[in-house]
Amino acid sequence: MQSEIRSQSTEWLDRVAWSEDGLAPVVTQESGSGKVLMLAWMNREALRLTAETKQAFYWSRSRQALWRKGEQSGHTQHVVEIRLDCDRDAVLLIVEQAGGIACHTGRHSCFFERLERDQWIADAAILKDPAWIYGSG
Amino acid sequence: MQSEIRSQSTEWLDRVAWSEDGLAPVVTQESGSGKVLMLAWMNREALRLTAETKQAFYWSRSRQALWRKGEQSGHTQHVVEIRLDCDRDAVLLIVEQAGGIACHTGRHSCFFERLERDQWIADAAILKDPAWIYGSG
Repeated sequence: MQSEIRSQSTEWLDRVAWSEDGLAPVVTQESGSGKVLMLAWMNREALRLTAETKQAFYWSRSRQALWRKGEQSGHTQHVVEIRLDCDRDAVLLIVEQAGGIACHTGRHSCFFERLERDQWIADAAILKDPAWIYGSG
Repeated sequence: MQSEIRSQSTEWLDRVAWSEDGLAPVVTQESGSGKVLMLAWMNREALRLTAETKQAFYWSRSRQALWRKGEQSGHTQHVVEIRLDCDRDAVLLIVEQAGGIACHTGRHSCFFERLERDQWIADAAILKDPAWIYGSG
């Protein structure tokens, strides 16, 4: 439908339907395992840097700041693929997860609670103590 | 980290950190293939109905309406698992996708554009003509 190939230089960034506050949700999936690791947000600069460096950058809505995944923890994400959805307002990153830990709680994935009979059950192991990861222990 | 088991009845819905407008982003992943099919939104009622019926319900921000996935297309989603992330503000659904088509463009996944050298390339086949799916052809 229409042209499916686009742009030069940074025109590809304009194709993303950024929200009013200039963001898009990003699903980060692990290459190989296919595990969904996290959901985060990007602004234009985060996406540009991610594409340029092949390291995942996000926008923190709480801190209102750009961050490179793993800058503190060392659990960086090497980006294998960047995808966009049909509405062009959501991004999918396929990554290799350094240390096998994406979550600040020390778990592999951030989605570690499973709904079971009206209860959320944490069913994933803590692989590393967050105090150890962030050096505050 | 506090109690990881919670609630009776609908208290589990309160555990979700709904946004100011009462929504949470939802990543929908296909059981088996691990393919990320789409990113959509839920409000409290959509999540309640999803858990109750095991069919995926979402909230359409553009139409400001609750919808059951597949209500028009027949491409319903049978829910195998519902997960919540560490910030409790994003949901992961694991589903079986009826017809193998999640996208309104007739493709398997909504994330059918891949970034390649500053260009978005649609690299997934259209499995069924949308005009045929939605009966307007």
